[in-house]
Amino acid sequence: MHIHLINPNSTPSMTAQALESALSVKHADTRLSASNPTDTPVSIEGGADEAMAVPGMLAEIRKREGQGVDAYIIACFDDPGLHAAREVARGPVIGICQAAVQVAMTISRRFSIVTTLPRSVPIIEDLVSDYGAERHCRKVRAINLPVLGLEEDPVEAERLLRQEIELAKQEDRAEAIILGCAGMSLLCTRLNKATGIPVIDGVTAAIKVAEALVGAGYATSKVNTYDYPRIKVGGCKVVV
Amino acid sequence: MHIHLINPNSTPSMTAQALESALSVKHADTRLSASNPTDTPVSIEGGADEAMAVPGMLAEIRKREGQGVDAYIIACFDDPGLHAAREVARGPVIGICQAAVQVAMTISRRFSIVTTLPRSVPIIEDLVSDYGAERHCRKVRAINLPVLGLEEDPVEAERLLRQEIELAKQEDRAEAIILGCAGMSLLCTRLNKATGIPVIDGVTAAIKVAEALVGAGYATSKVNTYDYPRIKVGGCKVVV
Amino acid sequence: MHIHLINPNSTPSMTAQALESALSVKHADTRLSASNPTDTPVSIEGGADEAMAVPGMLAEIRKREGQGVDAYIIACFDDPGLHAAREVARGPVIGICQAAVQVAMTISRRFSIVTTLPRSVPIIEDLVSDYGAERHCRKVRAINLPVLGLEEDPVEAERLLRQEIELAKQEDRAEAIILGCAGMSLLCTRLNKATGIPVIDGVTAAIKVAEALVGAGYATSKVNTYDYPRIKVGGCKVVV
Amino acid sequence: MHIHLINPNSTPSMTAQALESALSVKHADTRLSASNPTDTPVSIEGGADEAMAVPGMLAEIRKREGQGVDAYIIACFDDPGLHAAREVARGPVIGICQAAVQVAMTISRRFSIVTTLPRSVPIIEDLVSDYGAERHCRKVRAINLPVLGLEEDPVEAERLLRQEIELAKQEDRAEAIILGCAGMSLLCTRLNKATGIPVIDGVTAAIKVAEALVGAGYATSKVNTYDYPRIKVGGCKVVV
Amino acid sequence: MHIHLINPNSTPSMTAQALESALSVKHADTRLSASNPTDTPVSIEGGADEAMAVPGMLAEIRKREGQGVDAYIIACFDDPGLHAAREVARGPVIGICQAAVQVAMTISRRFSIVTTLPRSVPIIEDLVSDYGAERHCRKVRAINLPVLGLEEDPVEAERLLRQEIELAKQEDRAEAIILGCAGMSLLCTRLNKATGIPVIDGVTAAIKVAEALVGAGYATSKVNTYDYPRIKVGGCKVVV
Amino acid sequence: MHIHLINPNSTPSMTAQALESALSVKHADTRLSASNPTDTPVSIEGGADEAMAVPGMLAEIRKREGQGVDAYIIACFDDPGLHAAREVARGPVIGICQAAVQVAMTISRRFSIVTTLPRSVPIIEDLVSDYGAERHCRKVRAINLPVLGLEEDPVEAERLLRQEIELAKQEDRAEAIILGCAGMSLLCTRLNKATGIPVIDGVTAAIKVAEALVGAGYATSKVNTYDYPRIKVGGCKVVV
Repeated sequence: MHIHLINPNSTPSMTAQALESALSVKHADTRLSASNPTDTPVSIEGGADEAMAVPGMLAEIRKREGQGVDAYIIACFDDPGLHAAREVARGPVIGICQAAVQVAMTISRRFSIVTTLPRSVPIIEDLVSDYGAERHCRKVRAINLPVLGLEEDPVEAERLLRQEIELAKQEDRAEAIILGCAGMSLLCTRLNKATGIPVIDGVTAAIKVAEALVGAGYATSKVNTYDYPRIKVGGCKVVV
Repeated sequence: MHIHLINPNSTPSMTAQALESALSVKHADTRLSASNPTDTPVSIEGGADEAMAVPGMLAEIRKREGQGVDAYIIACFDDPGLHAAREVARGPVIGICQAAVQVAMTISRRFSIVTTLPRSVPIIEDLVSDYGAERHCRKVRAINLPVLGLEEDPVEAERLLRQEIELAKQEDRAEAIILGCAGMSLLCTRLNKATGIPVIDGVTAAIKVAEALVGAGYATSKVNTYDYPRIKVGGCKVVV
Repeated sequence: MHIHLINPNSTPSMTAQALESALSVKHADTRLSASNPTDTPVSIEGGADEAMAVPGMLAEIRKREGQGVDAYIIACFDDPGLHAAREVARGPVIGICQAAVQVAMTISRRFSIVTTLPRSVPIIEDLVSDYGAERHCRKVRAINLPVLGLEEDPVEAERLLRQEIELAKQEDRAEAIILGCAGMSLLCTRLNKATGIPVIDGVTAAIKVAEALVGAGYATSKVNTYDYPRIKVGGCKVVV
Repeated sequence: MHIHLINPNSTPSMTAQALESALSVKHADTRLSASNPTDTPVSIEGGADEAMAVPGMLAEIRKREGQGVDAYIIACFDDPGLHAAREVARGPVIGICQAAVQVAMTISRRFSIVTTLPRSVPIIEDLVSDYGAERHCRKVRAINLPVLGLEEDPVEAERLLRQEIELAKQEDRAEAIILGCAGMSLLCTRLNKATGIPVIDGVTAAIKVAEALVGAGYATSKVNTYDYPRIKVGGCKVVV
Repeated sequence: MHIHLINPNSTPSMTAQALESALSVKHADTRLSASNPTDTPVSIEGGADEAMAVPGMLAEIRKREGQGVDAYIIACFDDPGLHAAREVARGPVIGICQAAVQVAMTISRRFSIVTTLPRSVPIIEDLVSDYGAERHCRKVRAINLPVLGLEEDPVEAERLLRQEIELAKQEDRAEAIILGCAGMSLLCTRLNKATGIPVIDGVTAAIKVAEALVGAGYATSKVNTYDYPRIKVGGCKVVV
Repeated sequence: MHIHLINPNSTPSMTAQALESALSVKHADTRLSASNPTDTPVSIEGGADEAMAVPGMLAEIRKREGQGVDAYIIACFDDPGLHAAREVARGPVIGICQAAVQVAMTISRRFSIVTTLPRSVPIIEDLVSDYGAERHCRKVRAINLPVLGLEEDPVEAERLLRQEIELAKQEDRAEAIILGCAGMSLLCTRLNKATGIPVIDGVTAAIKVAEALVGAGYATSKVNTYDYPRIKVGGCKVVV
């Protein structure tokens, strides 16, 4: 099977990092590719960045439809354009936030999320609510470091994350931690060991969920909401 | 005060229609302008159409910031890009769905919504839930007519809307009706009279809410979530 | 248009203060009047005070129906008798809590409320939930000062409010603040400036929402719940 | 123990009927009295009727405090003034809606409610939600008969109730039925037998819950919300 | 009437203690018996302990059906097997958690729960949510003492409980406290006096609720969910 | 990896059928085994059947711990004992209801569930709510056929299922269907083809989710709720 990972921002080093995480957990038989649009923000921090990234991301999907891609992964924790992407793709589209939340709800009963900037906290809270985990998610926390800061000072990033995970253990009684940014992916294993609590990286979760869905033969339902967008030419509508 | 209405799709006749509705209810002192992007779908029917419309819509806002616009109205019932727009604008940004829901919650205790296509029903249900009206909204209904069908056959559109409103009165015990598409705006008064139940048009609601907020001196909070997007140059971040 | 503001308690100085706030934001064309019942508690602090205030408040509405009043404002943050008032009035009836919550949900994504006494906290929490803002409202806080204490020691009141707003900013990451008592109305502008966060006064919000609704031609739906109370004479019922 | 039942409306025959129901189920040792205010609506159909009934109802409680009443029952299904009454009384105050809902949640997993007029449906839905039974309550139904119609034509009332209960069994898969009006109390046993489904009368439920709470020594918590109303004299406040 | 109390764990001293609590509040006319299975865990701390206790508990019910037992009480705060027990019994089955929650929602507007081990916190939170008290319950707290520790060191247990109740008063603004373990039952009166806040013991609450339901003639609805389990012999099904 | 599937009831033909489904979708590298307890009900229809099945099911897990099993699947749609099983097992434990719901939330925006008996409907509704899909699940439907009836008359079962799925498409506007019983597993592919809507079988979903979780290295969090049950000997407690 062929899974394609899209980093919606335009920073290739982040695409490379997400791909590295994904490669380390994918099944031997899975073909994995990755790309990022080039006309989108260098990092996604809030709703405007998200909005500017989605058309480029959809274009990445559109040009691969019909070329044997079985599933797509959106490698940004805000799951930008997830519903739109599902309309455009035939196969399943996996958001790393939703995949991580589903894993957390399966291996623990209460979890917390640690993200980068405080401005993303309400956005992630609303996603968690939409994914049905409002009661299971104790708290969404932020280390107050910009997304690209994860790459620029990985030592400081790791220190801040460890600190925040300890707070989540003590104050939230979290039973698992979700890393709330694709850029934290490579730190996951070390944080897991250092803190003694399951730490869930969305990229890893998404790759495995994608393999699972494709392996079972599931595709996106084209009944109603996720049907392909109707093709409309000027005032003339063509129902596809 | 100056309010600018943006129709996120690229059909000028729909912009004109929304403007006509808005002009008929605005206060004499309000300066009202309207525009639509030219590179967006001709109608917005689902999440992919929404996503393709938002960057153009944000551009419409960006080029008017600093030119004395006090508030913006997004004249599409899915409220596409509403949160993103609030990051970009200084003044309030009003979505016609949210404004209509707030009116309905004030003048009735249970309401129903009538929209165009069934595929928009879950999208609107999720908005209604996010706006806190899950218990107050009895049902989201669809007349199964594409958005542009409202313009092409207004007689049939009106007939279908009347029919669906009667069902909402009988089956849902709706106490008010929200028209779930900006393109239904000009039918509002006639439907109101024909059905004997308050019928709420989002464009009307949004204009008046925008005047209210600007009149009171409210602007979008720049504390945290709706703060301006950070300006980021390549790997360098500049905090604004 | 004519908007009538009712302070449900029987303290004329509080009526005067709410009127002063309202006058400072109303549109030039709006005719504004205000009154309070004389047989109600001097302040409303809890459910029993509310209950004792509502019949007098309804009488204030009843005697103005048919005299050209277009909308009413209930100037007490518990929104006492709001649903009852809507049955009695033809035009819209605006509660200052509901109006403030609607404004807060439009200009911010997370807000906190600061009220007077702790005993009002659960009452306001329940209102917030009924108005659909449970997820958007971070916390309802109390400064532990009786309602009339706001008038008796405005300096101390302002100090306590500033202190609590700072806590809301830090601990709740509130993006806007709602003042949870009509008696705090005149402090709003100063608190706004002093704290650097949007501070929302319900009286202001309600006046502008009332102008908006009347300006759009909305009246209270008389279909079902908010229909006029049936007139009943002894065992004989007369359907009106 | 002494339990006092208050019918908040001013129709003595309804008070007598509720008392008759209560007497038939009370424990032999329980002293039971009943009263109704004389200055309230003859029946309670909607929020305005409720509001006009509450001060008289609170007066009924106030004049009995200090005279050995251990608990109060509010014999109207809208539970008007329930929170206010709890502030005024030392012992528990039981609303017949809340008591019936608690019984239904204990002996069944899904129930429906059948009330009189459609205008009461949203009011009862909101109560059910406040009492935490939103998922357990399948539907609130109305037989479209005024409250006093239950007394005037009991044969027709019983016919309509049986019909609606059958619908609740078939369409809602209700496992128990709550009668949504104190005036239906005496029909409960016959409806139970006729329909083969548990039918719950709120007056009965409330009497037994009141006996239970008093028997266990529970009184209304005077910590915070349900504390006695503060006594306030003009601008001077006296904390009690 | 005959009420039978079952302690689902196999520690007879805990059964004796629950019985002692129950005897002290039961009505003079109530016949009360108690038992525990002998093949279940010595204490119930978490879901696996619960699961191992339920079949033995159901057997305790089954052997008493047809012998005049009118209601059953499950004397473990996790309400293990509550729904299953209701299928097996004719009369009402009362869980001490649900009974305590219903009392707390009647005599206060916000309460907190204090249990033994932290691992039970999410379990109780989920029960509270199922019983519809999510908004009314401020917090579920744990004193971090195993269940049997309550018996082994009652002085320390009482000290820890008082400490945690004080925190609940200050930090949660709790208006009542529920003791979250049957083994805390005998400490209830002393904690009540020492802390000045209503303290609710589930065993007491359950006995009185059971008396109330039986006294009113209520039995478990055998319509649908709580119907008796079908008797199935091998591949042959016999509908009972 | 080694995944072990447990059918909690004691009907070996159902175990065989679930295994057959699982074998047809498992990855080539996955070792799959299956078993059922022998002292449990022949089918699970309601809460009492569930309760009687769980200890046997836990025993099936316990005897395999330490023998290299990486994950367990509970092949009964009520997910009986799911939380208990997670305490007992080191690796992930997957319930077929939760897995199916997670798939449905990923490939569609609204789904319905079709189960066997009406008595299971509220049980499944409560699970769906606990899994956070209350808004996404349109309706839980029943074909009114006992579990073993699926095996005894598969032709009739398939006819009833097709009929109910058509109703779900028309009345619920379901975008995907979940089969609400492990015994429907082998009908999934045919129903999918016959109805033109994605049909999700929980056994299939669970196998693939289990492979995904194990493949990513996830195990059940032993922090707090899902920690191993404490070993307790008489009155002596041993913390493990």
